Amino acid sequence: MADPLITLTTDFGPSSPYVAAMKGVILGVNPSVRLVDLTHEVPPQDIRHASFFLASALPYFPAGTLHLVVVDPGVGTPRKILYFEAARQRLLVPDNGCTSGFFGLVGPPIVAREVSEKRFWRTRVSSTFHGRDIFAPVAGQLSLGLDPAKLGPIADKWIQWESRVSQRKGNFLVGEVIFIDTFGNLITDIPAEKTNQAQVSIKVGNQTLPKASWVNAYGDAKVGSLVALISSQSTAEIAVVGGNAAKRLKARIGTAVQFKLPAK
Amino acid sequence: MADPLITLTTDFGPSSPYVAAMKGVILGVNPSVRLVDLTHEVPPQDIRHASFFLASALPYFPAGTLHLVVVDPGVGTPRKILYFEAARQRLLVPDNGCTSGFFGLVGPPIVAREVSEKRFWRTRVSSTFHGRDIFAPVAGQLSLGLDPAKLGPIADKWIQWESRVSQRKGNFLVGEVIFIDTFGNLITDIPAEKTNQAQVSIKVGNQTLPKASWVNAYGDAKVGSLVALISSQSTAEIAVVGGNAAKRLKARIGTAVQFKLPAK
Amino acid sequence: MADPLITLTTDFGPSSPYVAAMKGVILGVNPSVRLVDLTHEVPPQDIRHASFFLASALPYFPAGTLHLVVVDPGVGTPRKILYFEAARQRLLVPDNGCTSGFFGLVGPPIVAREVSEKRFWRTRVSSTFHGRDIFAPVAGQLSLGLDPAKLGPIADKWIQWESRVSQRKGNFLVGEVIFIDTFGNLITDIPAEKTNQAQVSIKVGNQTLPKASWVNAYGDAKVGSLVALISSQSTAEIAVVGGNAAKRLKARIGTAVQFKLPAK
Repeated sequence: MADPLITLTTDFGPSSPYVAAMKGVILGVNPSVRLVDLTHEVPPQDIRHASFFLASALPYFPAGTLHLVVVDPGVGTPRKILYFEAARQRLLVPDNGCTSGFFGLVGPPIVAREVSEKRFWRTRVSSTFHGRDIFAPVAGQLSLGLDPAKLGPIADKWIQWESRVSQRKGNFLVGEVIFIDTFGNLITDIPAEKTNQAQVSIKVGNQTLPKASWVNAYGDAKVGSLVALISSQSTAEIAVVGGNAAKRLKARIGTAVQFKLPAK
Repeated sequence: MADPLITLTTDFGPSSPYVAAMKGVILGVNPSVRLVDLTHEVPPQDIRHASFFLASALPYFPAGTLHLVVVDPGVGTPRKILYFEAARQRLLVPDNGCTSGFFGLVGPPIVAREVSEKRFWRTRVSSTFHGRDIFAPVAGQLSLGLDPAKLGPIADKWIQWESRVSQRKGNFLVGEVIFIDTFGNLITDIPAEKTNQAQVSIKVGNQTLPKASWVNAYGDAKVGSLVALISSQSTAEIAVVGGNAAKRLKARIGTAVQFKLPAK
Repeated sequence: MADPLITLTTDFGPSSPYVAAMKGVILGVNPSVRLVDLTHEVPPQDIRHASFFLASALPYFPAGTLHLVVVDPGVGTPRKILYFEAARQRLLVPDNGCTSGFFGLVGPPIVAREVSEKRFWRTRVSSTFHGRDIFAPVAGQLSLGLDPAKLGPIADKWIQWESRVSQRKGNFLVGEVIFIDTFGNLITDIPAEKTNQAQVSIKVGNQTLPKASWVNAYGDAKVGSLVALISSQSTAEIAVVGGNAAKRLKARIGTAVQFKLPAK
């Protein structure tokens, strides 16, 4: 049987020793663990980015994978740390809503525990670095087979954002940019199947796209073209072929996106 | 026997969920795989960077390592996905020339297959994310022992750039910057053994280096000195000791480099 | 028994092929190694950053972990490469002081060897890339069980910086910023227990903090507040809640920090 997998998702950045210390602690508890970096460059304290990120990645992992998430502006305050099981994945997270996207996609967790039992933590807990002193040792113990029921009492509530849903208003389908990737592509929350792709006109912020056209793939239009296509999340996406739509359109997370549909 | 190795090279950037999703899919198919990140920061869609990168790194890996390369501006278009075996390495790549540097170095592949057999792909294939939906599941299957002959028909051609070769013109040896590393060092395509190191004068772009001198190592000249030395690729390299030659000389990939050799 | 662990710490940056080549060489020597990236984004040639980094992370790793550190401005000069054992960790490093913080914390090494025996190196050694040609193959050999005594003669000296210690001068406790993390938090070298937390006033550079107050956790004060708290290194730390103290205060590594203590 394969050695246990633990994934790491943080906002600690690529040059800080915080990630390295966490890896040391996990491996110090269980040297057989296989660590998988998901990202350490969630924008600092950006819980919404983390939520989108986790929903986009976690469903694909093998059953039983443990996902450690330390994007945690509330570290050291009475915010809880939680252990979840959902869709065959296991998560160790701060209670700040970062699981909202994932649970919105796969449904609520079937196991939820508070992580409050201090005997599984490091002896001395820094109030600024629970990643090293609580998350990492608890993850190590879980990978060794610790029964999650021993971590703390059952959790019966946690922060779960309402997922904003794009709306139809008359002839308009109104949503927003929910993610911008490295290429500057704008991922929206507008389900692709609702956009009536062939005939729409599109507005991003207060700019109407000049000749936006639906394409099947980035390479189906000329370099520099502004195009709409179906994102890998099955939502509408705005891109510039070979360029950066976020820069071109000065768009950000939360920028409104509007599709004008043909009159019925 | 060690668990199978799969390396990952992409331009997805450090904060996007695309890499994480690919890792999930691979491990979902074969939880025993050992993943090795090569880089996820190839500059967006920069196939030439990818080509240099792969040629610099792949030859050192153990026989049978599978290298997954997703720098793929043509995703979703009819460009092919190819499986290669060359120099005891295995590669899964888009057909866009990104293997040119590697094949230029080690010779042409002894196995080449189109990846066209859909039963090894994810059921639903996004036209913007073949990394997750084709490359990753196919890599997982190959790591489980899938016969590459089942991936699709033999490929008899693929994109292979001519390698530009530095040229001797009279007393001048003319080449260009082919890579700039993190330190701002300029790696050229001029073979070091041709430069007649002791006596040359050097021009980068239209700037003649004031007192460039060949050194054996960065630390052999004073901080701030502009020096030439033999790169780790055995070509001529221009560097500023403790500084950044690319910034100092305003050089970029493709900037001309000229060595004036002594008259014969 | 778990496969051997080798960690990697470099300043090669995220898009260069140098890290990838090192991984290839290590795995080429011993395909069973488990590689753990600590960071590849130590600021270029910043040995002090590396020293702080290693001291913050290495103590947590399981006994016998081999740590490969290639932050090496002196590559190719007669600077030595050293093998150390300290606090149950094994290190392969350039002799440039990068181990000062770690040894300052855990005590001097109990084994120290020069790495001078060329038969464990790659046949051809580039004077600009010892990471690939010396560090990596030697690490691979050590992971296979090579007796460190065979690497070269006992080393009886190496570069070890005096650790600067914050000082008490009258009513003032004077230290400096020794690290700035991704969030812009300023980590100082002033031991937290000496700051008499409740009553101090604080100066960073020549700015007196307006209403700095000690808090237990970032989330204990309002967003935008300038606060002092105990860092995860048990030293005084200056932070802006939900913001970036380094930017706000224009502070850098080495910026003086002064705590005014109550008169006795």
